[in-house]
Amino acid sequence: MKIALAQQNYHIGNFESNFEKIRTAIVEAKHNHADIVVFSELSICGYPPRDFLEFTDFITRCEESVKKVAALADGIAVIVGAPTYNHNPKGKPLYNSAFFIADKKVQQVVHKTLLPTYDIFDEVRYFEANTEFNLIAYQGKKFAITICEDLWNTGYEQLYVSSPLDNLIPLKPEFIINISASPFDYGHAQERISVLQDAAKTSRVPIFYCNAIGSQTDIIFDGGSLVINSNTNVFYEMSYFKEEINYFSLDDLKKNSTQVSEQPKDKITLIHDALILGIKDYFQKSNLKKCILGLSGGIDSAVVCKLAVEALGSENVHALLMPSKFSSSHSVSDAEELAKNLRIKYDIISIEGIFDSVNKTLSPFFAGKPFDLTEENIQARSRAILLMAMANKFNYVLLNTSNKSEFSVGYSTLYGDMSGGLSVLGDVYKTQVYELANFINREKTIIPKNIITKAPSAELRPDQKDSDSLPEYDVLDKILFQYIEKRQGPNELVQMGFDKTLVDRTLKLVNTSEYKRNQTPPILRISPKAFGMGRRLPIVGKYLS
Amino acid sequence: MKIALAQQNYHIGNFESNFEKIRTAIVEAKHNHADIVVFSELSICGYPPRDFLEFTDFITRCEESVKKVAALADGIAVIVGAPTYNHNPKGKPLYNSAFFIADKKVQQVVHKTLLPTYDIFDEVRYFEANTEFNLIAYQGKKFAITICEDLWNTGYEQLYVSSPLDNLIPLKPEFIINISASPFDYGHAQERISVLQDAAKTSRVPIFYCNAIGSQTDIIFDGGSLVINSNTNVFYEMSYFKEEINYFSLDDLKKNSTQVSEQPKDKITLIHDALILGIKDYFQKSNLKKCILGLSGGIDSAVVCKLAVEALGSENVHALLMPSKFSSSHSVSDAEELAKNLRIKYDIISIEGIFDSVNKTLSPFFAGKPFDLTEENIQARSRAILLMAMANKFNYVLLNTSNKSEFSVGYSTLYGDMSGGLSVLGDVYKTQVYELANFINREKTIIPKNIITKAPSAELRPDQKDSDSLPEYDVLDKILFQYIEKRQGPNELVQMGFDKTLVDRTLKLVNTSEYKRNQTPPILRISPKAFGMGRRLPIVGKYLS
Repeated sequence: MKIALAQQNYHIGNFESNFEKIRTAIVEAKHNHADIVVFSELSICGYPPRDFLEFTDFITRCEESVKKVAALADGIAVIVGAPTYNHNPKGKPLYNSAFFIADKKVQQVVHKTLLPTYDIFDEVRYFEANTEFNLIAYQGKKFAITICEDLWNTGYEQLYVSSPLDNLIPLKPEFIINISASPFDYGHAQERISVLQDAAKTSRVPIFYCNAIGSQTDIIFDGGSLVINSNTNVFYEMSYFKEEINYFSLDDLKKNSTQVSEQPKDKITLIHDALILGIKDYFQKSNLKKCILGLSGGIDSAVVCKLAVEALGSENVHALLMPSKFSSSHSVSDAEELAKNLRIKYDIISIEGIFDSVNKTLSPFFAGKPFDLTEENIQARSRAILLMAMANKFNYVLLNTSNKSEFSVGYSTLYGDMSGGLSVLGDVYKTQVYELANFINREKTIIPKNIITKAPSAELRPDQKDSDSLPEYDVLDKILFQYIEKRQGPNELVQMGFDKTLVDRTLKLVNTSEYKRNQTPPILRISPKAFGMGRRLPIVGKYLS
Repeated sequence: MKIALAQQNYHIGNFESNFEKIRTAIVEAKHNHADIVVFSELSICGYPPRDFLEFTDFITRCEESVKKVAALADGIAVIVGAPTYNHNPKGKPLYNSAFFIADKKVQQVVHKTLLPTYDIFDEVRYFEANTEFNLIAYQGKKFAITICEDLWNTGYEQLYVSSPLDNLIPLKPEFIINISASPFDYGHAQERISVLQDAAKTSRVPIFYCNAIGSQTDIIFDGGSLVINSNTNVFYEMSYFKEEINYFSLDDLKKNSTQVSEQPKDKITLIHDALILGIKDYFQKSNLKKCILGLSGGIDSAVVCKLAVEALGSENVHALLMPSKFSSSHSVSDAEELAKNLRIKYDIISIEGIFDSVNKTLSPFFAGKPFDLTEENIQARSRAILLMAMANKFNYVLLNTSNKSEFSVGYSTLYGDMSGGLSVLGDVYKTQVYELANFINREKTIIPKNIITKAPSAELRPDQKDSDSLPEYDVLDKILFQYIEKRQGPNELVQMGFDKTLVDRTLKLVNTSEYKRNQTPPILRISPKAFGMGRRLPIVGKYLS
């Protein structure tokens, strides 16, 4: 028996393009004499469809699309994912389902049992959990279909009281297929392998795991579809961030039980590739082409600019250099050097005229008041006005260049440098931005050295440095990581050896900046805990603040 | 037996102030010889605590606070709500619990069974569902404690497969206590009464229902705590939007089985009062005092201004009138008249200087291009720069004045009129804003008549009217209501009699504006489906768009 895993990039709610991808893969898989072709979770509509699921019309379109797929299942069996109705009058109205289709007919529908409802996941919001367990019988083989999380109730933190495998293994499947939409973070690929190895260990049969790729606004799916042998070896790991179809025969698995084939997993490479896919898909799926961004001469905008060039092509990236009287002499020259290295179009527009005009307009009210944060923010907002005006006039999308350290502690201006359609680095700490810059320069200098070596500064007042207002990034980022990703509280942080005053100050900065983060652009998620849908905190709260 | 219901306004994570409120009520209830004093759901930490629940330190503080409450339970029993650990190693780590405390000791802990996970609710994200059912025995009485949603699995749309009452009624409770944090919308009070009447009908015993009041950023709790008699009569309904403690004796309920005492439920009055509480609590709980807003001479900012005066006092409301060359002559005079009626401070600042300066700065790039949306947005953003500068310099918070119709169809400028710390009318359709204005003027003219009667206009180009770009609001709002609140799709809308072209155009406007709504301020929720946490849609999707 030959099984094809189709690792594809769907677009939420774009039934036509999703169907077309599925159709093409079925044709190819037939041509390659596959017996079964497997698509990822909710492949029919794209994952996560969120509240689109609350519209009857959306579910009807899913049903229609499944019918069109069924018509193609001739001489091949197809497994696709789509929502289905729960016909029990009690409980959530839908299931998250997998369709087993053969002989042009839906033969069996399998529902998801474990419904992730944490971090970015909201599945209990929509779906009822499955409670019935059956195998699929096809061409003399018996196997189980499971959906993503169904295999994840393992390890030391089991979020569910029981696991589908407890019910499926006694039925003696010969192999297990898992259709997934399991999002990327820099540690996810390794975790995924462990989890599936656990499943192979428990079940003693091979696991065929088909994941999606592609970015859905902020959430990036990395693919890395897997075949795990019954002895828990990684028989084959498919590419990251790329569409592909691969074919596996059950006989080959048995014959080559010692084969181990894995993708390289360098953390910064993964983050780099994920961000590029994130930008590319945001534009492509929104039917947009060109971006604009401000180049400050600092490292964040330099890295975003290079990633944007990779994603969109240098002809589609336009930079504005917007100096003020507080800009250092090198800020423009460094940015120009970068723009030239990247062969992108750039313009230099001083914000002095606008800044003066705002100050003049406000002078009757501000007379006698000292220069403070207000004037710093006016500069940042003047830049945003220019960037947005260019974006509006020429149909660019503004890329936001703030990093996670800044968003964490609120070191950024609402409606100023926090503006943009998409935040590229909002889940990347400043210290990781440096790693990305060095990675980008690994073969030749693309980002000018001075951009990497100079001390970070917002350049909004004379001789300003980030370190005037913030702890040094190497310490700050460690505290932020423990607090945000690891959910460690003040006591745990002090026990780890961080200075209590610094911990209290940092946590207070984070918690009192929630109101700002509430208005950020969507942030490409590359860590297990990104700002956005995956981290939900009260804005008006009083805790560590 | 005398039962006190303490309807209070908690602050999420503010353990000190929450404890102090609970302490004060216990003292008062003792003084009034109550046998049991009941507080609302998660009263110890405030509801909804969201991801604060993921911090061990937060749970520890809850535990400490419960201990402090227990020390006061002397001569009176206390029921409070707080999260507790699930000691089973499998399943979600916490329960949403009620503590029954007497004789200075926690006598029993009851966990919530039905965990709402829809709209603004995310309880499965944190909590494991209860599966054990027991009554409380106290002073010779046996009764059941339930938590909010536990009584709501009723009517035609039952989201849960089983109900706690199925397990509790066979144990023969003499009455049922329900501790809640059930948020307001304009139809909620009536629905709540029906649901509790259903519970009384099923159980044939009285229901004591204690709700919270107060606004938690965007979510407003209205109180309206209830005693329902065993014959389903509303024995007593407590005030909306006000803290109070009321006392009820079981004997009185039996004696006065025909008593029916309800609060008035006029929809616009409720919305009006809810918004005022929403503003007041946002400021008070954030330790802020003063707001600023732009007065355009239009109806939205006029209504927000009056609500802000009610919430914060006229001395804490500062208006900016920011005319441009496109402003009509009456826009300033109408706004001035309003400001005078409300006795608030206002300043007139023309945006012409800033607008000219931005245009001049951009003229090398825009040469030969016609005036378009770009220049309209520059005006809106120039106003935002001024408002935010004043807010920064003088420690105001900017109130956003956009309405739900505008947010729905994206008729608003990001980083311009979409700015602000809090959106007051973002869940109020334009036609409802008119109703609010008329309600405000019910006794005397506060909002000048001309503001109410003139055709809505953004005044961003010569002789502009909203109706140039949008359908008339009375039709638009009806379509929006059906699509947003009622989740009716394109086919259902056409079947209702709406024009197909208009429906398609409107739905497309709504769906393609998701990226803007993703960056709005928090919006005070007054409807069953508000933009924000309760409505989660893909930004990059392709559906009805």
